[in-house]
Amino acid sequence: MEKTIAVLPGDGIGPEVTEAAVKVLKSIAMRYGHTFHWKFAAIGGAAVDEFGSPLPKETVEACEASDAILLGAVGGPKWDNNPAEQRPEKGLLNIRKHFDLFANVRPVKAVPALLGSSPLKEEIAREVDMVIVRELTGGLYFGEPKRHNENSAVDTLVYTRAEIERIVDQAFEMARSRRGKLASVDKANVLESSKLWRKVVEERKAGYPDVEVEHMLVDSAAMKLITNPRAFDVVVTENMFGDILSDEASVITGSLGMLPSASIRSDGFGLYEPVHGSAPDIAGQNKANPSAAILSAAMMLRQSFGMESEASSIEDAVMSVLEDGYCTGDLSACGNKVISTERFVEKVIEE
Amino acid sequence: MEKTIAVLPGDGIGPEVTEAAVKVLKSIAMRYGHTFHWKFAAIGGAAVDEFGSPLPKETVEACEASDAILLGAVGGPKWDNNPAEQRPEKGLLNIRKHFDLFANVRPVKAVPALLGSSPLKEEIAREVDMVIVRELTGGLYFGEPKRHNENSAVDTLVYTRAEIERIVDQAFEMARSRRGKLASVDKANVLESSKLWRKVVEERKAGYPDVEVEHMLVDSAAMKLITNPRAFDVVVTENMFGDILSDEASVITGSLGMLPSASIRSDGFGLYEPVHGSAPDIAGQNKANPSAAILSAAMMLRQSFGMESEASSIEDAVMSVLEDGYCTGDLSACGNKVISTERFVEKVIEE
Ligand SMILES: CC(C)[C@H](C(=O)O)[C@@H](O)C(=O)O
Ligand SMILES: CC(C)[C@H](C(=O)O)[C@@H](O)C(=O)O
Repeated sequence: MEKTIAVLPGDGIGPEVTEAAVKVLKSIAMRYGHTFHWKFAAIGGAAVDEFGSPLPKETVEACEASDAILLGAVGGPKWDNNPAEQRPEKGLLNIRKHFDLFANVRPVKAVPALLGSSPLKEEIAREVDMVIVRELTGGLYFGEPKRHNENSAVDTLVYTRAEIERIVDQAFEMARSRRGKLASVDKANVLESSKLWRKVVEERKAGYPDVEVEHMLVDSAAMKLITNPRAFDVVVTENMFGDILSDEASVITGSLGMLPSASIRSDGFGLYEPVHGSAPDIAGQNKANPSAAILSAAMMLRQSFGMESEASSIEDAVMSVLEDGYCTGDLSACGNKVISTERFVEKVIEE
Repeated sequence: MEKTIAVLPGDGIGPEVTEAAVKVLKSIAMRYGHTFHWKFAAIGGAAVDEFGSPLPKETVEACEASDAILLGAVGGPKWDNNPAEQRPEKGLLNIRKHFDLFANVRPVKAVPALLGSSPLKEEIAREVDMVIVRELTGGLYFGEPKRHNENSAVDTLVYTRAEIERIVDQAFEMARSRRGKLASVDKANVLESSKLWRKVVEERKAGYPDVEVEHMLVDSAAMKLITNPRAFDVVVTENMFGDILSDEASVITGSLGMLPSASIRSDGFGLYEPVHGSAPDIAGQNKANPSAAILSAAMMLRQSFGMESEASSIEDAVMSVLEDGYCTGDLSACGNKVISTERFVEKVIEE
């Protein structure tokens, strides 16, 4: 197959981890006989510095001419006091909206070799295996009116039925392909938008008789993610709840540096990026854990290109390197064989 | 002193735990020479059954004629399919709004004897000691427009400067009386209301030079509550974020059954209630842990009546009973001396 991939390294450790992922993808291309074309473009703080905007039109064009986007990370103290339109994260928000990337998919899977770094007791974190499906282009993030002055402020949580239907369907499909359990998280005892959300979930479930659905309030979900995370298979929720719960979930297994994410559109086009941030404190030191970026590349192969065995071979390779006791310095629990970013990538490619 | 206390037992285990708290308060009155008058009234599902409303006007009147309110818990499957206005939790929302109880204060303190029941590793949960101050009468809970139809839904997150100032001041005062650290949690990279919130915090901090303030995004806060909860002293945040984060925080030390809360007004009037729910599955079995209700009564004595030593003597008594290894069945980690609700109360009173 021939595919074009837009690579947006971004800030901090973004460039080194995307470089790692690109190396792995190149070795996959060789081994499986694919041709990948690359379009490198700027996003985030780096784009503000070079183009005066966190999402320059050159970058949008590069992405439009590609089959998928691989992103590193954005942000850093250098841009923290910029006006809103010139802040790195605005690049993320804009690219999601521009490409209608409405479904943010975040798997959280316990890695046995890393359970020691989980803040949870091992018997609770062990075997956690869930996917959070977060609505990404609606709700409080984009609703109007949205403004503040000296004396008051307003944000608006709006959802249309169509916006809810498409994300709920996405989650049902995902549940069907996994253990068949869906937790729909809302705040239906307080929010009108949650009432419509719950109604849509109730209607759609008729089309998925093989999926068992549970409605859960967001406050209960925040507790259960800690007390019994293994109980979750697929979780679906609106944008802001998803922001909070997916970050909460990302730390429970101790493997934040391992977690990939996808932000996808209905036609399979998507943006793939590590869950972790840009970690400016360790940038450029050849220390960053490239696993999340590499696993994001694997998600891209599977979800946007339909390359299932290529994706699995990457995932297996990363896991074997870890099982052999090698890891980067962020993972205190690894087998004491701390290696550099570059060395880690070489080992993954060898596998 | 002479005080009138409204007691709203509510549903499930509400009646038995408030009864326990009342017994303890009576013994305090005897020992310290106070006179407490009691006004029992209905709330929640029990009030729906008896009066057709989760907050009948008789109850509002009883509370208006009192110096503070002690509440058990509301809710249960029996009323789950009631229309919104006749659901138990509507009683809670209405009483908060009616009495302008704008500050929800929730201490979370690790109890050494109970660390074994924490889902977190003991070295992380140990010595956690924070207070979450949640704005309780504004934001998404009450903002207009708030409606849904078949095709769309809207909720509105509104705050006025005055609403933010009073809750922020409350939190600064609390931080000053503790370790002098305040984490203000918002989503200023996305929400306009958070921008005003952050501005107000920045302004008010000039009046509290002894308090060290940190702004934190809600998604980071959700992670840090798990990875490093000891880093928090006082946390202040808006209504919905507070709902999620305070429930998240309530499970980290393993002592959910121990946690009290206060919902207070500027003049010191307040409603005191356990953080836990109505637990209908164990209601009426003399098994419920009355600690949270008893400790809520202690908070009432301190915060609404200024009875510091009375409050401490209750808190010390509860802790000694636990340290002696006695507890109710919910606390798997207690010293194996599982006792009934009534017996637990007797022991607290003895101490
Ligand atoms: C940077 C920020 C705007 C963004 C969000 O809130 O969506 C981030 O937290 C995320 O989850 O990708
Ligand atoms: C019952 C519900 C409306 C309420 C809330 O969301 O405020 C509860 O979760 C709480 O935290 O007291």
